[in-house]
Amino acid sequence: MSQQRLRQQLNEIIFGTETPAGRGFDIALIYAILISVFIVIIDSVEHISSEFKGLLFFCEWLFTILFSIEYAVRLYCSQHPFRYARSFYGIVDLLSILPSYIAFFLPQAQFFIIIRLFRVLRIFRVLKLFRYLGEANMLMRSILLARRKIFVFLMSVVVLVSIFGSLMYVIEGPEHGFTSIPTSIYWAIVTITTVGYGDITPQTVLGQSLASIIMVTGYAIIAVPTGIITAELAVEIGRDKGEHACRNCKKTGHDSDAVHCKYCGAKMEIPV
Amino acid sequence: MSQQRLRQQLNEIIFGTETPAGRGFDIALIYAILISVFIVIIDSVEHISSEFKGLLFFCEWLFTILFSIEYAVRLYCSQHPFRYARSFYGIVDLLSILPSYIAFFLPQAQFFIIIRLFRVLRIFRVLKLFRYLGEANMLMRSILLARRKIFVFLMSVVVLVSIFGSLMYVIEGPEHGFTSIPTSIYWAIVTITTVGYGDITPQTVLGQSLASIIMVTGYAIIAVPTGIITAELAVEIGRDKGEHACRNCKKTGHDSDAVHCKYCGAKMEIPV
Amino acid sequence: MSQQRLRQQLNEIIFGTETPAGRGFDIALIYAILISVFIVIIDSVEHISSEFKGLLFFCEWLFTILFSIEYAVRLYCSQHPFRYARSFYGIVDLLSILPSYIAFFLPQAQFFIIIRLFRVLRIFRVLKLFRYLGEANMLMRSILLARRKIFVFLMSVVVLVSIFGSLMYVIEGPEHGFTSIPTSIYWAIVTITTVGYGDITPQTVLGQSLASIIMVTGYAIIAVPTGIITAELAVEIGRDKGEHACRNCKKTGHDSDAVHCKYCGAKMEIPV
Amino acid sequence: MSQQRLRQQLNEIIFGTETPAGRGFDIALIYAILISVFIVIIDSVEHISSEFKGLLFFCEWLFTILFSIEYAVRLYCSQHPFRYARSFYGIVDLLSILPSYIAFFLPQAQFFIIIRLFRVLRIFRVLKLFRYLGEANMLMRSILLARRKIFVFLMSVVVLVSIFGSLMYVIEGPEHGFTSIPTSIYWAIVTITTVGYGDITPQTVLGQSLASIIMVTGYAIIAVPTGIITAELAVEIGRDKGEHACRNCKKTGHDSDAVHCKYCGAKMEIPV
Repeated sequence: MSQQRLRQQLNEIIFGTETPAGRGFDIALIYAILISVFIVIIDSVEHISSEFKGLLFFCEWLFTILFSIEYAVRLYCSQHPFRYARSFYGIVDLLSILPSYIAFFLPQAQFFIIIRLFRVLRIFRVLKLFRYLGEANMLMRSILLARRKIFVFLMSVVVLVSIFGSLMYVIEGPEHGFTSIPTSIYWAIVTITTVGYGDITPQTVLGQSLASIIMVTGYAIIAVPTGIITAELAVEIGRDKGEHACRNCKKTGHDSDAVHCKYCGAKMEIPV
Repeated sequence: MSQQRLRQQLNEIIFGTETPAGRGFDIALIYAILISVFIVIIDSVEHISSEFKGLLFFCEWLFTILFSIEYAVRLYCSQHPFRYARSFYGIVDLLSILPSYIAFFLPQAQFFIIIRLFRVLRIFRVLKLFRYLGEANMLMRSILLARRKIFVFLMSVVVLVSIFGSLMYVIEGPEHGFTSIPTSIYWAIVTITTVGYGDITPQTVLGQSLASIIMVTGYAIIAVPTGIITAELAVEIGRDKGEHACRNCKKTGHDSDAVHCKYCGAKMEIPV
Repeated sequence: MSQQRLRQQLNEIIFGTETPAGRGFDIALIYAILISVFIVIIDSVEHISSEFKGLLFFCEWLFTILFSIEYAVRLYCSQHPFRYARSFYGIVDLLSILPSYIAFFLPQAQFFIIIRLFRVLRIFRVLKLFRYLGEANMLMRSILLARRKIFVFLMSVVVLVSIFGSLMYVIEGPEHGFTSIPTSIYWAIVTITTVGYGDITPQTVLGQSLASIIMVTGYAIIAVPTGIITAELAVEIGRDKGEHACRNCKKTGHDSDAVHCKYCGAKMEIPV
Repeated sequence: MSQQRLRQQLNEIIFGTETPAGRGFDIALIYAILISVFIVIIDSVEHISSEFKGLLFFCEWLFTILFSIEYAVRLYCSQHPFRYARSFYGIVDLLSILPSYIAFFLPQAQFFIIIRLFRVLRIFRVLKLFRYLGEANMLMRSILLARRKIFVFLMSVVVLVSIFGSLMYVIEGPEHGFTSIPTSIYWAIVTITTVGYGDITPQTVLGQSLASIIMVTGYAIIAVPTGIITAELAVEIGRDKGEHACRNCKKTGHDSDAVHCKYCGAKMEIPV
């Protein structure tokens, strides 16, 4: 019976955000995650790494052990341990402690600790940032509605880039940096996305002419994904305003951050 | 009579996608195309090319002969051979086998085998990706509706780029990399599309000032094609929702992937 | 009287586009302009210039003399010579022949012959491309309606770029390529417009951090001019469709390239 | 009593823009600010700085002393000196004279004089550019309405860039310029914003493949902030036109720069 109560209390603290202890735990956890990610990042800077070798090593293992214990406790006090372990947060929690252990055998693996950043997504739950989730949902919904258009668009880009890349390989050749078709395709992607590193550039007049065509093409088609997302978003925002009705006068068209109805002044329900 | 039946059966397998054999043939064909393109791409990588010379040579000719036979059979079993030969797919089918033969005389021609990528467009027919075709059609229709605006826009860019290029040639001159007006125009295109390789850059104060004006201009006018496409797309999406009516309650405004009417719950017709 | 008739006939040929002779003259003129611009462009390529020195020199002067005669005849046969001379086309016509004469004293001036490109705008008048002018007008109207928003936006960019440039000059200093505040402002413009030549790049950690902020800022505010133009264009396109009514059934909402009314099938008036 | 009048008169001249003296003072002030900023900018150019050392030094101190006196007088003649000192303009006025004094101890501080540029914002008050303020307000309102979407978007970019940066550090390593995770994150920002300096570029096939994914991702998500701002702006512009009603016939839908009602021709109120 007492163990049952302990599990329930731990569950409230670790999974819950209603009690002061639950909130405090989650906020402490987020700070711990951010600090541990920061340590991994600065550990990669040579002169800091060599100077504070001991301290950084100690901190990394401290956090890894803390997070390992936390994972074990989560499994212990969860009502459905297997369901938690297979959930998004459960997998991220596991993936964010594994790299430290794998680093015993594969030193580079250590830097995958950065996966811990995903755990910070909990901040949305803790700080009751439901409004932000609503906004994120709207963005995701727009992208989902546009997924087929984006797929068709990406397919066209892949075919275009392959053709242009092969053409440039034939025109410019290895002596001007276009050493193979994969490299030429990489150059075409760098160009069509307007990144333009300049590590590989066309030298011949024909190559420069073709490159100009690719750039203007890229310039024109950058409009397509923007147009797709914007058009979907405009519909979503319009629908949002349409559904956000006042309970008193039933009129719609309020902004999503309206507190009072702009027609009758009645208090608005906050949309979730 | 028997030959008539053979042609009809071949036609069903090669051109049709209704029978299991027809689907199987088309899917096998798509894999063969992707593999043959992949071989051409890796054949251009020096160290792979020299190591697997024999194997790659064998594969390329295997696919070329297979595709040549396929083309001949298509001509044989088609009901209107000439109509097929002059259709989009007919021309692409021919163009995708020619480079291998031309490569006897002109080795570089081999890389044009990448034209085979266009044959993959058949995937839309096989996998009944009509919805995707619908999306592609909407994108194409938006671009077509906006074609005159885009033409006016491109003409303005060409004039602008010629004037700016000539000005920079006069200001910077050959000693700073602007070796001729064509090169300067190439630089202006690289700059106005915000690609910015950095292989040619202005060195004088006057040149840098003019370059700044070109960049801000480019930054401002990148908005124009985006605006054109977006505005047309918004109209297209709006029309799409307007035309997609429920057969039961006649109400419109359904999403293009809706399965049931959101007002009365009746099964929706899938839009083609 | 005879001179009066000569002037009138010349006027019809040179200024008019109604008679076959008038159209023929304008089309020949456009070809002459394009060829003369092409000659100036290839004249700037060293190895072509030195090989065909005599031919190019002859062609340039041939066109200059032809265009000078044309300008004189225009002045002679125009009903209001002064009004023509002060009009947009009159000024462009003059400016496009001056550089050749100025080149006697200032050889570089020759390349300003490219101003002739503006004369090609006549093509709109000749080919009755009124629809294109309509589209161009819509684009211009959108930009005009948005002019105050664009001005506020450009002012903000200028202030932002000056502040960021000065900060980077203090942080990075002349030893990393940021030799003066004007150069640093140039770098900030190159960065905020996402051109990114890479001729000047931050080397210190602080400089790279500030540069990252500038880039993300640029990434976010690139949305603003696009948003402005798109929103105005959407309103313009909406109004366009609203005004394009069928004369038979009075219904609106037709596409700008509709030939028949989509409701009653009556022939539509073509909008100008 | 006389001192009271002096303070009131000074207040009218310095703070007011109604009297000719008040307008004259503000316009003179704006010119003085622009000149003093220009002096700081050209003072950073080595060869100008060394040649006109004395003159530039004199001018800088002249303006600093003038602005210091102006600040003192503002404090003296303001009705609520503390309220002024804590207002936006009060703080900017102070910050724009401090750098010159701090430069005694910290020579680099001098360049922060560029903060004076913010003082030029007064131009909006002087020239009665209320319309421009209205446009600026609309832009700000759109950005404010979209602030949560933009926050969610920026958070996603930060997480994405950290993950991609760490991956590239592991793949490419210090020998190809990816010397640490912070540097790799800087590279990821340079790439995802399509700036693409080219000072650090991937060399391995795996690195180039990952870089290609980052670029296409950046290309796709550049659409998101644009879409957000555009959709909000479109709503704002629509509302603007909806609220701008004619006082005579009550009809709405007028452009923001309309002087007469387009339906009944009555004079419109100018919107503030």
